[in-house]
Amino acid sequence: MLADGSVVRHVHEAPREARRIKVEEDILARNDALAALNRKVLAQAGTFAVNLMSSPGSGKTTLLVRTLRELKGRPLAVIEGDQQTDLDAKRIEATGVKAVQLNTGKGCHLDAGMVASALPKLPLQKGALLFIENVGNLVCPASFDLGENRKVVVVSVTEGEDKPLKYPDMFAVADLVLVNKIDLLPHLEFDVAQLEENVRRVRPGAPIFRVSAKTGEGFESWLMWLRG
Amino acid sequence: MLADGSVVRHVHEAPREARRIKVEEDILARNDALAALNRKVLAQAGTFAVNLMSSPGSGKTTLLVRTLRELKGRPLAVIEGDQQTDLDAKRIEATGVKAVQLNTGKGCHLDAGMVASALPKLPLQKGALLFIENVGNLVCPASFDLGENRKVVVVSVTEGEDKPLKYPDMFAVADLVLVNKIDLLPHLEFDVAQLEENVRRVRPGAPIFRVSAKTGEGFESWLMWLRG
Repeated sequence: MLADGSVVRHVHEAPREARRIKVEEDILARNDALAALNRKVLAQAGTFAVNLMSSPGSGKTTLLVRTLRELKGRPLAVIEGDQQTDLDAKRIEATGVKAVQLNTGKGCHLDAGMVASALPKLPLQKGALLFIENVGNLVCPASFDLGENRKVVVVSVTEGEDKPLKYPDMFAVADLVLVNKIDLLPHLEFDVAQLEENVRRVRPGAPIFRVSAKTGEGFESWLMWLRG
Repeated sequence: MLADGSVVRHVHEAPREARRIKVEEDILARNDALAALNRKVLAQAGTFAVNLMSSPGSGKTTLLVRTLRELKGRPLAVIEGDQQTDLDAKRIEATGVKAVQLNTGKGCHLDAGMVASALPKLPLQKGALLFIENVGNLVCPASFDLGENRKVVVVSVTEGEDKPLKYPDMFAVADLVLVNKIDLLPHLEFDVAQLEENVRRVRPGAPIFRVSAKTGEGFESWLMWLRG
């Protein structure tokens, strides 16, 4: 199986392959139709949506909690994607922001249909920001348009400089890359400039901000980008 | 799409659903048949295979490099799985151990067919240890038997204590859990005991070793487990 729903690998018999390619097209076409619908619903409400993607454990939720606190006063909403548990939605709701948890079960990413099911439960309004925290995964979420306005990829400095090259599809779709956990740099052998160069090889032109969700370092640029 | 190749989510029409479930069964049945073949080939050669799984950036390759150096003298072989690049295979071959790189393209996990294609290129022999480093991903690799003898899940202390609960399918199949990067503990707010308790809730009875691939701390237990 491929991350975009394709199941054509190691299939050599022509009739079988044809059927499998059809299934892949079904999935992505269906997703794209629902993503277009989400985009319309969000635009009509005047809400701007940001899809946050990363490895498990790169600090997306901690980053989101600090971001929501910094943006207090603005209408905000969150969709939390996880394979299991509502731990993250609870962390978000502790900030006073409404969050809907989506559990994907065996699924490795959110899709537009899941997001469509969550939108009616959220306070979408003019000037609101909706954050969608995807399932922690550097492969599958890259292929699925959710109807968001921007895709943000978070990578932490504990993960190695090579990640953009090893997971190029994810970085290639990023509108912005956040390099998180920079407070840990003094304790690591990590070359941030090398990571940034690898991001640029895969996704030239996307802004890259260095941040610490723990200390708030670098948040000015990220918040300004969100306000813009 | 689900991590095990299933594509039944959000499909409500009965005939379509039936076709999709069939595709899922095709994929897993085909994988299991090839995994059984791999297991037979490995057993006949006298080689013991370990499937290493984790998030991207949890330190699998660094851990593997140190492990191979510690096991010098024993016949060793490695299969490296990544979406793109042969960076990891190069790091492995610098230790003198033969490595085959498998690139999954858009795929989010290795499958038994890919491993079958790599086995003839490796020096399998009596008493050899074969390490299979899976694609960095806490969802998809959990569903695919590769024909390995043991599954080892690596989780680093930078990833958060909640990962076993949020990605239960992965931890539920683990024969051993390695908690890596413990050298960073003094710089983190991380509760190792809580992580271990969460592992036990999902996978009671599996041994858990705390290690640092950077300093070698805790490697005695891991190496003893491999030798046994």
